[in-house]
Amino acid sequence: MSIACAIKDLEALLKDRLQISPSSRVGHGQNEAYFPQYLPDAVAFPTSSAEVSQVVQICLRHGCPIVAYGAGTSLEGQHLPVLGGIALDMVQMGQVLEVRGPDLNVVVQPGCTRETLNQHLRDHGLFFPVDPGANASLGGMAATRASGTTAVRYGTMRENVLALEVVMADGRIIRTGTAARKSSTGYDLTHLMVGSEGTLGIITELTLRLQGIPEAISAATCNFESVDAAVQTVILTIQSGIPMARIEFVDEMMVRGFNLYANLKLPEKPHLFIEFHGSLSGVAEQAKEFGEIAKDNGAQGFSWAERSEDRAALWKVRHAAHQASGMLAPGKRTLATDICVPISHLAKAVTRAQDMCSTRDLVATIVGHVGDGNFHCAVRFDPGAPDEVAKVQQFSDDLCALALSFGGTISGEHGIGLGKVKYMHAQHGQALTEMNAIKKAFDPKGIFNPGKMLP
Amino acid sequence: MSIACAIKDLEALLKDRLQISPSSRVGHGQNEAYFPQYLPDAVAFPTSSAEVSQVVQICLRHGCPIVAYGAGTSLEGQHLPVLGGIALDMVQMGQVLEVRGPDLNVVVQPGCTRETLNQHLRDHGLFFPVDPGANASLGGMAATRASGTTAVRYGTMRENVLALEVVMADGRIIRTGTAARKSSTGYDLTHLMVGSEGTLGIITELTLRLQGIPEAISAATCNFESVDAAVQTVILTIQSGIPMARIEFVDEMMVRGFNLYANLKLPEKPHLFIEFHGSLSGVAEQAKEFGEIAKDNGAQGFSWAERSEDRAALWKVRHAAHQASGMLAPGKRTLATDICVPISHLAKAVTRAQDMCSTRDLVATIVGHVGDGNFHCAVRFDPGAPDEVAKVQQFSDDLCALALSFGGTISGEHGIGLGKVKYMHAQHGQALTEMNAIKKAFDPKGIFNPGKMLP
Repeated sequence: MSIACAIKDLEALLKDRLQISPSSRVGHGQNEAYFPQYLPDAVAFPTSSAEVSQVVQICLRHGCPIVAYGAGTSLEGQHLPVLGGIALDMVQMGQVLEVRGPDLNVVVQPGCTRETLNQHLRDHGLFFPVDPGANASLGGMAATRASGTTAVRYGTMRENVLALEVVMADGRIIRTGTAARKSSTGYDLTHLMVGSEGTLGIITELTLRLQGIPEAISAATCNFESVDAAVQTVILTIQSGIPMARIEFVDEMMVRGFNLYANLKLPEKPHLFIEFHGSLSGVAEQAKEFGEIAKDNGAQGFSWAERSEDRAALWKVRHAAHQASGMLAPGKRTLATDICVPISHLAKAVTRAQDMCSTRDLVATIVGHVGDGNFHCAVRFDPGAPDEVAKVQQFSDDLCALALSFGGTISGEHGIGLGKVKYMHAQHGQALTEMNAIKKAFDPKGIFNPGKMLP
Repeated sequence: MSIACAIKDLEALLKDRLQISPSSRVGHGQNEAYFPQYLPDAVAFPTSSAEVSQVVQICLRHGCPIVAYGAGTSLEGQHLPVLGGIALDMVQMGQVLEVRGPDLNVVVQPGCTRETLNQHLRDHGLFFPVDPGANASLGGMAATRASGTTAVRYGTMRENVLALEVVMADGRIIRTGTAARKSSTGYDLTHLMVGSEGTLGIITELTLRLQGIPEAISAATCNFESVDAAVQTVILTIQSGIPMARIEFVDEMMVRGFNLYANLKLPEKPHLFIEFHGSLSGVAEQAKEFGEIAKDNGAQGFSWAERSEDRAALWKVRHAAHQASGMLAPGKRTLATDICVPISHLAKAVTRAQDMCSTRDLVATIVGHVGDGNFHCAVRFDPGAPDEVAKVQQFSDDLCALALSFGGTISGEHGIGLGKVKYMHAQHGQALTEMNAIKKAFDPKGIFNPGKMLP
């Protein structure tokens, strides 16, 4: 069998850095979303780009699937080896290789996590802004084009990856992009790899843009009488050009989840969680302008977090949305939708989503990076109950159709993986031909993350 | 002959919107750089995406080259039909289709120019920030991944194209991207098309990000005793995080050119031309912080332009760099280099470039979007004098090698076209395999802009 032959060759190469124990396989076949377990046949732990190249060459020779594994936090099953094969765990390629402070960039290995990088950068007065909440690996974040709470100010992985080293399907190691801030030299392979979900190559090194830690940071929460009032505040804030660092919507049900999860006593009303970055006077000015818009929309209960530890506590709660949603229906799994719409349609989209949840009797929370027009409904259901599965799938289908009808997208940041393959035709139509052509040109034998993204 | 057959079919389709007159062909075979004239066999003027599709299908059937033509302002010969065939002039597809003010985006046709768009947007309180100087077409700017003076604040075309409609080599019309601010659904075809210089498809519609016109804008010039002092000011300004809207370096020779061209009396010293955007207090704060850094580096002769007409005059001079360089050696042509380096190497790179010009006795000016690490040496030479040609080519080779040795790029914004094909291997190495694979997959018969970009 081809996979068995690959494993034999990989054992000779990697020795005890190839694991076939049930515990290691199970540890790489789980997911935080609602997908069943898919076990890899073996787990490889490479330590260098050259070794990744050797692993890929072995897999190519035997037609063995190979799926990169970072922190396992993807939400559409991107890291699940649905056809078995090799899970390529990047944990031993997790170094910060070079901080180039004066150039505001850093070179990291793909297994380095977001939090590790930011701890490393703190003494340099710098930070990497993209923050999906989970302590994801930077390779995984690039592969899924992740973003999160700060994208409204600093962009997504799309805007923050300057250059990559990638191992291609034939084992060649290529470099894309440069350390310069811009370039106009040929096809943009960096952006092609960012968001390709491990289907075109294995990212082995990343050069990332950094930001200086702002002179002043201030965060706050406030609440509103209605979803519409909160969302209108967001729309007006973005349209007025206030450079928000974060502006997050949290609905009543999500607040209830936070209260249960973190033992808080927030009023069960729609909230905004916000943050300002800038100079001292700049932050004061932003806060004043935002405050005026919010108060015009009936905002109440402003709670400010000026100190670093208070802000950390605030965002720790917000980032626990996935776990906090779980408190509302213990024992079930979560399907997290991820639509993103042009901001003029945001209020309609959020209201419709809430209506759909309530009329269909779904237990769901809504949180969102609403400054970008992106929000998630986390719907709890039992994957073993066919009627519940059918209901949440129908909800997901309808919400994606809504996003497309508004000129938006079925995924703002979670990606396609397994869960959204069925929407790719509706999203891209004719352009799927080009995506398939690229896949075929780059990975003709289909060894990289088969069964993902492309229908 | 295949081109002749294509022309026959195109005449039947387009009637008098296919021109084969010498004047029309010559008008589409010129360039502002140093390349010889290359005539298309015919010039087509499509009026719709469907018609572009029909034109492409005819060209495919007959294996006839097709080269998109916007405003003809590209500086590496991207629009020159080196193998003849059809110049596809987009002038009749120049409409602003839809301004979506609340969503801060706009839909335009590819022949719409930057200035036309900004005039159209003024009443909406919005502007499109990418400003390469020339009144280029937006389709051409996307195709060459253009940027310019404001990229330091607002990014290049890479960051400002949200979505595209593109006619592919088989005539299919695809859509890439969405009107949402971010998306994570499949391969990033938008970024693949941006910068592809008409070699993968014909852009027929663009959705572009817009910015609100800032409350306050202030511009200034100042001069320095040395290149190094000016460039160090830039480096410190960028590293300190001041959100400069423009920060342009102009060397002594360029100032001489401006003085001759615009009849000015600027001191012939290295200058910075700068602009601040923001709230009234924000601009004041930025100007104060920049002023302190500049004065620490010996800046003198601050001249402020607060009024809109004064700023327009200031930037009109800066944007006339190409013509002003011409004043220094009338009757010759210009080779404009375009390297971009990580900002920590900027001072070394500019100084080395100046030294190379003076020791080699080249008449050259230097201007640069130095906030991005990008600068141009405009070298005057006589294309008919082999020794002058050899000298400027050697200079260009050496400067590109310098950029690569600093981890930078051979082109920050002008692109590859004809002039920089020879450096593509040094820039990309193994990754050229993937670029060629994409070209072959998208345009197997090689009808789109043959002879450009890929060696």
